[in-house]
Amino acid sequence: MSVKHIDQIETTNIPNGTGVTRKMLISLEEAPNFAMRCFTIQAGGRMPNHTNTVEHEQYVIGGRAQVGIGDEVFEVQKGNVVYIPAGVPHWYTTLGEEPFEFICLVPNQPDSTTVLE
Amino acid sequence: MSVKHIDQIETTNIPNGTGVTRKMLISLEEAPNFAMRCFTIQAGGRMPNHTNTVEHEQYVIGGRAQVGIGDEVFEVQKGNVVYIPAGVPHWYTTLGEEPFEFICLVPNQPDSTTVLE
Repeated sequence: MSVKHIDQIETTNIPNGTGVTRKMLISLEEAPNFAMRCFTIQAGGRMPNHTNTVEHEQYVIGGRAQVGIGDEVFEVQKGNVVYIPAGVPHWYTTLGEEPFEFICLVPNQPDSTTVLE
Repeated sequence: MSVKHIDQIETTNIPNGTGVTRKMLISLEEAPNFAMRCFTIQAGGRMPNHTNTVEHEQYVIGGRAQVGIGDEVFEVQKGNVVYIPAGVPHWYTTLGEEPFEFICLVPNQPDSTTVLE
Protein backbone atom coordinates (compact mmCIF):
# COMPACT_ATOMS: atom_id res chain seq x y z
CA MET A 1 0.00 0.00 0.00
CA SER A 2 1.34 3.44 -0.98
CA VAL A 3 0.03 5.41 2.04
CA LYS A 4 -0.40 4.31 5.67
CA HIS A 5 -0.65 6.06 9.03
CA ILE A 6 1.76 5.17 11.83
CA ASP A 7 -1.16 4.79 14.27
CA GLN A 8 -2.53 1.89 12.16
CA ILE A 9 0.71 -0.12 12.24
CA GLU A 10 1.29 -3.05 14.57
CA THR A 11 3.70 -2.63 17.50
CA THR A 12 6.36 -5.27 18.22
CA ASN A 13 8.24 -5.60 21.49
CA ILE A 14 12.06 -5.49 21.22
CA PRO A 15 13.36 -8.00 23.78
CA ASN A 16 16.93 -6.63 23.95
CA GLY A 17 15.62 -3.28 25.23
CA THR A 18 13.71 -2.06 28.29
CA GLY A 19 10.42 -0.44 27.26
CA VAL A 20 11.37 -0.56 23.57
CA THR A 21 8.87 -1.24 20.77
CA ARG A 22 9.10 -1.08 16.98
CA LYS A 23 6.69 -0.41 14.13
CA MET A 24 7.65 -1.52 10.63
CA LEU A 25 6.62 1.45 8.49
CA ILE A 26 8.02 0.24 5.12
CA SER A 27 9.42 -3.29 5.13
CA LEU A 28 11.96 -4.91 2.82
CA GLU A 29 9.07 -6.88 1.33
CA GLU A 30 7.50 -3.55 0.29
CA ALA A 31 10.58 -1.65 -0.93
CA PRO A 32 13.74 -2.85 -2.67
CA ASN A 33 16.64 -0.99 -1.07
CA PHE A 34 16.00 0.06 2.53
CA ALA A 35 13.44 -0.32 5.32
CA MET A 36 11.77 2.40 7.45
CA ARG A 37 10.96 1.59 11.06
CA CYS A 38 9.82 3.66 14.07
CA PHE A 39 11.18 2.87 17.53
CA THR A 40 9.57 4.04 20.78
CA ILE A 41 11.36 3.86 24.13
CA GLN A 42 9.02 4.51 27.04
CA ALA A 43 10.13 7.11 29.63
CA GLY A 44 12.62 5.38 31.93
CA GLY A 45 13.47 2.83 29.26
CA ARG A 46 16.72 2.09 27.47
CA MET A 47 18.39 0.18 24.70
CA PRO A 48 21.69 -1.36 25.83
CA ASN A 49 25.02 -0.81 24.09
CA HIS A 50 25.06 -2.94 20.94
CA THR A 51 26.36 -3.16 17.40
CA ASN A 52 24.62 -3.87 14.11
CA THR A 53 26.25 -5.05 10.93
CA VAL A 54 24.36 -2.35 8.98
CA GLU A 55 24.24 1.43 9.34
CA HIS A 56 21.29 3.41 10.78
CA GLU A 57 19.86 6.71 9.51
CA GLN A 58 17.59 8.17 12.20
CA TYR A 59 15.30 11.15 12.71
CA VAL A 60 13.91 11.96 16.16
CA ILE A 61 10.17 12.72 16.17
CA GLY A 62 9.47 13.03 19.91
CA GLY A 63 10.86 12.87 23.44
CA ARG A 64 14.46 13.19 24.57
CA ALA A 65 17.31 10.75 25.09
CA GLN A 66 21.00 10.34 25.62
CA VAL A 67 22.50 8.49 22.68
CA GLY A 68 25.92 6.89 22.92
CA ILE A 69 27.78 6.39 19.63
CA GLY A 70 31.24 4.89 19.96
CA ASP A 71 32.97 6.94 22.69
CA GLU A 72 30.66 9.96 22.37
CA VAL A 73 27.38 10.78 24.16
CA PHE A 74 24.80 13.15 22.65
CA GLU A 75 21.54 14.55 24.01
CA VAL A 76 18.88 14.45 21.32
CA GLN A 77 15.28 15.54 20.86
CA LYS A 78 12.71 16.20 18.12
CA GLY A 79 14.46 17.34 14.94
CA ASN A 80 17.81 15.67 15.61
CA VAL A 81 19.32 13.61 12.82
CA VAL A 82 21.48 10.67 13.92
CA TYR A 83 23.82 8.60 11.77
CA ILE A 84 25.28 5.39 13.20
CA PRO A 85 27.83 3.73 10.89
CA ALA A 86 27.77 -0.05 10.53
CA GLY A 87 29.58 -1.83 13.35
CA VAL A 88 29.78 1.16 15.74
CA PRO A 89 28.53 0.48 19.30
CA HIS A 90 25.48 2.56 20.26
CA TRP A 91 22.93 2.86 23.09
CA TYR A 92 19.92 4.95 24.14
CA THR A 93 18.63 6.08 27.54
CA THR A 94 15.49 8.22 27.72
CA LEU A 95 15.43 11.64 29.41
CA GLY A 96 12.32 13.30 30.83
CA GLU A 97 8.76 12.06 31.06
CA GLU A 98 7.86 11.62 27.38
CA PRO A 99 8.39 8.50 25.26
CA PHE A 100 11.46 8.84 22.99
CA GLU A 101 10.47 8.18 19.37
CA PHE A 102 12.61 8.02 16.26
CA ILE A 103 12.43 6.92 12.66
CA CYS A 104 15.27 4.48 11.82
CA LEU A 105 16.22 3.26 8.35
CA VAL A 106 18.43 0.31 7.47
CA PRO A 107 19.67 -0.99 4.12
CA ASN A 108 18.53 -4.23 2.52
CA GLN A 109 21.52 -6.21 3.79
CA PRO A 110 21.90 -8.97 6.40
CA ASP A 111 21.86 -7.46 9.90
CA SER A 112 23.19 -9.09 13.05
CA THR A 113 22.77 -7.42 16.48
CA THR A 114 25.41 -7.99 19.18
CA VAL A 115 24.64 -6.75 22.70
CA LEU A 116 27.86 -5.60 24.41
CA GLU A 117 26.71 -5.31 28.04
CA MET B 1 29.12 14.25 11.96
CA SER B 2 27.01 11.65 13.81
CA VAL B 3 24.37 14.00 15.25
CA LYS B 4 22.89 17.20 13.80
CA HIS B 5 19.71 19.20 14.28
CA ILE B 6 17.42 19.96 11.36
CA ASP B 7 17.33 23.65 12.34
CA GLN B 8 21.09 23.91 11.71
CA ILE B 9 20.95 22.53 8.16
CA GLU B 10 21.06 24.73 5.09
CA THR B 11 17.86 25.17 3.03
CA THR B 12 17.92 24.83 -0.77
CA ASN B 13 15.21 26.07 -3.10
CA ILE B 14 13.69 23.44 -5.45
CA PRO B 15 13.06 25.21 -8.75
CA ASN B 16 10.56 22.65 -10.13
CA GLY B 17 8.17 23.36 -7.24
CA THR B 18 6.22 26.37 -5.95
CA GLY B 19 7.27 27.21 -2.40
CA VAL B 20 9.36 24.03 -2.10
CA THR B 21 12.65 23.81 -0.21
CA ARG B 22 14.91 20.92 0.76
CA LYS B 23 17.36 20.20 3.57
CA MET B 24 19.93 17.44 3.08
CA LEU B 25 19.89 15.66 6.44
CA ILE B 26 22.23 12.76 5.58
CA SER B 27 23.87 12.95 2.16
CA LEU B 28 25.32 10.19 -0.02
CA GLU B 29 28.75 11.59 0.84
CA GLU B 30 28.00 10.81 4.51
CA ALA B 31 26.30 7.42 4.17
CA PRO B 32 26.82 4.54 1.75
CA ASN B 33 23.38 3.27 0.75
CA PHE B 34 20.64 5.93 0.95
CA ALA B 35 20.17 9.64 1.60
CA MET B 36 17.78 11.38 4.05
CA ARG B 37 16.28 14.71 3.04
CA CYS B 38 13.50 16.93 4.45
CA PHE B 39 11.19 18.78 2.08
CA THR B 40 9.02 21.74 3.09
CA ILE B 41 6.19 23.06 0.89
CA GLN B 42 4.88 26.40 2.11
CA ALA B 43 1.08 26.76 2.54
CA GLY B 44 -0.37 27.35 -0.92
CA GLY B 45 2.61 25.70 -2.59
CA ARG B 46 2.84 22.60 -4.75
CA MET B 47 5.15 20.15 -6.43
CA PRO B 48 3.99 19.34 -9.99
CA ASN B 49 3.36 15.83 -11.29
CA HIS B 50 6.74 14.22 -12.00
CA THR B 51 8.62 10.97 -12.05
CA ASN B 52 11.94 9.94 -10.54
CA THR B 53 14.07 7.00 -11.59
CA VAL B 54 14.44 5.98 -7.91
CA GLU B 55 11.86 5.15 -5.24
CA HIS B 56 10.94 7.43 -2.30
CA GLU B 57 10.27 6.40 1.31
CA GLN B 58 8.58 9.31 3.10
CA TYR B 59 7.34 10.19 6.58
CA VAL B 60 5.17 13.28 7.13
CA ILE B 61 6.27 15.41 10.11
CA GLY B 62 3.95 18.42 9.78
CA GLY B 63 1.16 20.10 7.81
CA ARG B 64 -1.31 18.55 5.40
CA ALA B 65 -1.32 17.87 1.67
CA GLN B 66 -2.96 16.05 -1.16
CA VAL B 67 -0.51 13.57 -2.67
CA GLY B 68 -1.09 12.08 -6.09
CA ILE B 69 0.56 8.71 -6.76
CA GLY B 70 -0.19 7.23 -10.17
CA ASP B 71 -3.98 7.46 -10.56
CA GLU B 72 -4.72 7.74 -6.83
CA VAL B 73 -4.99 10.83 -4.60
CA PHE B 74 -4.42 10.67 -0.83
CA GLU B 75 -4.80 13.25 1.93
CA VAL B 76 -1.85 13.04 4.30
CA GLN B 77 -0.72 14.66 7.53
CA LYS B 78 1.72 14.12 10.40
CA GLY B 79 2.33 10.41 10.94
CA ASN B 80 1.54 9.29 7.39
CA VAL B 81 4.01 6.97 5.69
CA VAL B 82 4.23 7.31 1.89
CA TYR B 83 5.94 4.93 -0.53
CA ILE B 84 6.42 6.01 -4.14
CA PRO B 85 7.88 3.28 -6.35
CA ALA B 86 10.53 4.23 -8.92
CA GLY B 87 9.05 5.65 -12.10
CA VAL B 88 5.53 6.29 -10.75
CA PRO B 89 4.18 9.83 -11.37
CA HIS B 90 3.53 11.79 -8.17
CA TRP B 91 2.60 15.32 -7.06
CA TYR B 92 1.86 17.32 -3.89
CA THR B 93 -0.52 20.22 -3.17
CA THR B 94 -0.66 21.66 0.35
CA LEU B 95 -3.88 21.85 2.37
CA GLY B 96 -4.53 24.32 5.19
CA GLU B 97 -2.37 27.11 6.57
CA GLU B 98 0.66 25.18 7.81
CA PRO B 99 3.78 24.30 5.82
CA PHE B 100 3.74 20.67 4.69
CA GLU B 101 6.93 18.90 5.81
CA PHE B 102 8.15 15.38 5.16
CA ILE B 103 11.25 13.25 5.45
CA CYS B 104 12.13 11.63 2.09
CA LEU B 105 14.76 8.94 1.53
CA VAL B 106 16.27 7.83 -1.76
CA PRO B 107 18.73 5.06 -2.61
CA ASN B 108 22.29 5.65 -3.75
CA GLN B 109 21.45 5.26 -7.44
CA PRO B 110 21.33 7.74 -10.34
CA ASP B 111 18.11 9.80 -10.19
CA SER B 112 16.55 11.71 -13.04
CA THR B 113 13.43 13.88 -12.51
CA THR B 114 10.93 14.32 -15.35
CA VAL B 115 8.18 16.93 -14.91
CA LEU B 116 4.98 15.75 -16.63
CA GLU B 117 2.93 18.99 -16.66
